[in-house]
Amino acid sequence: MSPSRLTPWPVLATTVEGDYPVFRLLRERARSPRTGACLDFFVLETRDWVTVLPLTEDEQVVLVRQYRHGVKQLTLEIPGGLIDPGETPAAAALRELQEETGYTAREVIPLGRVQPQPAIQNNICHTFLARGVTRVAAPTPDDGEDMEVVTVPLTELEDRVRSGEIAHGLVLAALYRFELWRRDHPGTP
Amino acid sequence: MSPSRLTPWPVLATTVEGDYPVFRLLRERARSPRTGACLDFFVLETRDWVTVLPLTEDEQVVLVRQYRHGVKQLTLEIPGGLIDPGETPAAAALRELQEETGYTAREVIPLGRVQPQPAIQNNICHTFLARGVTRVAAPTPDDGEDMEVVTVPLTELEDRVRSGEIAHGLVLAALYRFELWRRDHPGTP
Repeated sequence: MSPSRLTPWPVLATTVEGDYPVFRLLRERARSPRTGACLDFFVLETRDWVTVLPLTEDEQVVLVRQYRHGVKQLTLEIPGGLIDPGETPAAAALRELQEETGYTAREVIPLGRVQPQPAIQNNICHTFLARGVTRVAAPTPDDGEDMEVVTVPLTELEDRVRSGEIAHGLVLAALYRFELWRRDHPGTP
Repeated sequence: MSPSRLTPWPVLATTVEGDYPVFRLLRERARSPRTGACLDFFVLETRDWVTVLPLTEDEQVVLVRQYRHGVKQLTLEIPGGLIDPGETPAAAALRELQEETGYTAREVIPLGRVQPQPAIQNNICHTFLARGVTRVAAPTPDDGEDMEVVTVPLTELEDRVRSGEIAHGLVLAALYRFELWRRDHPGTP
């Protein structure tokens, strides 16, 4: 990283505003190193996440359509979710893949780390490519999830983005990391 | 979009858990159309956002390095922020570009809509390409922002992603939409 004159803001006090199923909401009072002013920032403290782009041997992408309570719409996404305590990111990717789609993978390849929302969330999302995926079971969504498995040829994936059907920021971030990975590994997916 | 058997979850009750500078936190009790069970979901209600990828005539990308309170690190990002009430997304993109970098643009081109976090946020982020950007003033960051302007050749941008220096999910999402735009407009920018 090129040099910078910027420095962290010292945190003077942290208060838990609320404790919810997916995150804790923290109020953090911090002091600006530039102006000396003290300001409150609100941060969602949550576990790290994973996303996984599952590809079959014949270059079909295994997606999940689901109802999302934030936007109150159906979305089309790659599988993903929270990493369990003690679980490695790669293990979480395989677990979420199987829970949400019933597929397992021959191998998972890390595509890089993404910050879901660095202004207001403390966590990172580990992105993976899963290759040689095959269906081994029925999906096992939890009570809060309604989902369907949708397979799309890899060659049609970007048109699903152009049309707006795939619009989840972390999914587009994973697709960009996958683009870079393909440039670095010509002749594969 | 291909047909789906999934349907929205009826919301039975909404409670405001907290009202913060950037978002309101809502508790929404909703009923699963699949199981009939009633569950609480927590949603951040916030204004829509913009991001803007600023390109100079000689294909330099104008980035901002800033301290982010969620991850407590310096990040390297494209400019962006909240749309003001009554403001169009394109006007917000130009305003954020000038506030954060001091640059203005010959034209802004929409690259598409992204859902920052469809599970827990209700908003969307409008992404733009700004072409022909030139520096016309000093940046005017607000009290909560510490930032530096960093210009990077477009040809080096993806290496900043590979290295992890650019890791913000919404920035990678904008870069993916920009990739698709370039495929659709060969010979540009």
